[in-house]
Amino acid sequence: MGGVSTAERAPKQDRSRATRQRLLEAAVACLAEHGWAGSTVAVVAERAGVSRGAAQHHFPTREDLFTAAVEYVAEERSNAIRALFPDGAAADRRAVVSALVDLFTGPLFRAALHLWVAASDEDQLRPRVTELEARVGRETHRIAVDLLAADESRPGTRETVQGLLDMARGLGLANLLTDDAARRERVVTQWAALLDEVLA
Amino acid sequence: MGGVSTAERAPKQDRSRATRQRLLEAAVACLAEHGWAGSTVAVVAERAGVSRGAAQHHFPTREDLFTAAVEYVAEERSNAIRALFPDGAAADRRAVVSALVDLFTGPLFRAALHLWVAASDEDQLRPRVTELEARVGRETHRIAVDLLAADESRPGTRETVQGLLDMARGLGLANLLTDDAARRERVVTQWAALLDEVLA
Repeated sequence: MGGVSTAERAPKQDRSRATRQRLLEAAVACLAEHGWAGSTVAVVAERAGVSRGAAQHHFPTREDLFTAAVEYVAEERSNAIRALFPDGAAADRRAVVSALVDLFTGPLFRAALHLWVAASDEDQLRPRVTELEARVGRETHRIAVDLLAADESRPGTRETVQGLLDMARGLGLANLLTDDAARRERVVTQWAALLDEVLA
Repeated sequence: MGGVSTAERAPKQDRSRATRQRLLEAAVACLAEHGWAGSTVAVVAERAGVSRGAAQHHFPTREDLFTAAVEYVAEERSNAIRALFPDGAAADRRAVVSALVDLFTGPLFRAALHLWVAASDEDQLRPRVTELEARVGRETHRIAVDLLAADESRPGTRETVQGLLDMARGLGLANLLTDDAARRERVVTQWAALLDEVLA
């Protein structure tokens, strides 16, 4: 009672944070590999090397765990893309378009896709994922506007950027079953050139 | 033996074709509503009002039924979009872009999405769906090129059209959890205007 010093509390908080992070990363990997049906708190706890009790302490429900996981990794990726262009509005629009499209490939997109599809069938999951998706979508839009130096006060610019992000999402879907990287590169090159004209 | 007249055979073939069609339509509806996990030959047979034996006569395996179903409905929709523009290359590019985007909303897209996501996890399903997806994708591209009067001999045109179809696919995905129709209309208007400049 009141006898725990700050020095003793800090490492405990660090451990707790590290456990949480391991669970979130394991949850995204699990969802990407096994889909929603194969992803339970127990499976993720084992993968993360955490007891089931500890996992449930951090995330009381399966929905809590997986929505938090997709949000966490989406934030990590948002930070990573901003870090790629530390000067903000970059001169090279092709590099920005390419980096935006990359947000929609890889394990995070696969995990998010599994979560979306599951949410479309499950009433319990749908409102959580809808809200998460709106939040992540807004942040991705903000990043795109900043890095492309798009002037949203000009009519049509907002929709141009939205369409670009829809295209990025569609390219992610096209990459689900086969490696679509070569075709994707060509589409990115062409549309980055078109955007350069439109946004100039 | 040999005593069946043409007149007697024809109605039997018609009945068989009608049964097959009912099964295919029920399969897409089932996949769209319940996902891959909830979609079996037995569930579809019941929905179509066909005996399980008759269903298995037409489609020996679950994979046969559902890939045939998505292909059948995709063909129906391809025919429908061509019928919308009987003169081929239409003057109104916005109407064409809108019709192309519509291919990726509604029950067929939901069904196909469930099939893709299931195929990404199941080795038995993946090659079938990959091949189907390539075939349907080629046909959709051909329709887009024709109706947009896009000259693919010009550098970049092929990728412009591909990017447009990727955008349409991404818009379909954005419509999965919420009704995205209002935003989609604005994006379609803007991108149709961009295409009008680019393809002119």
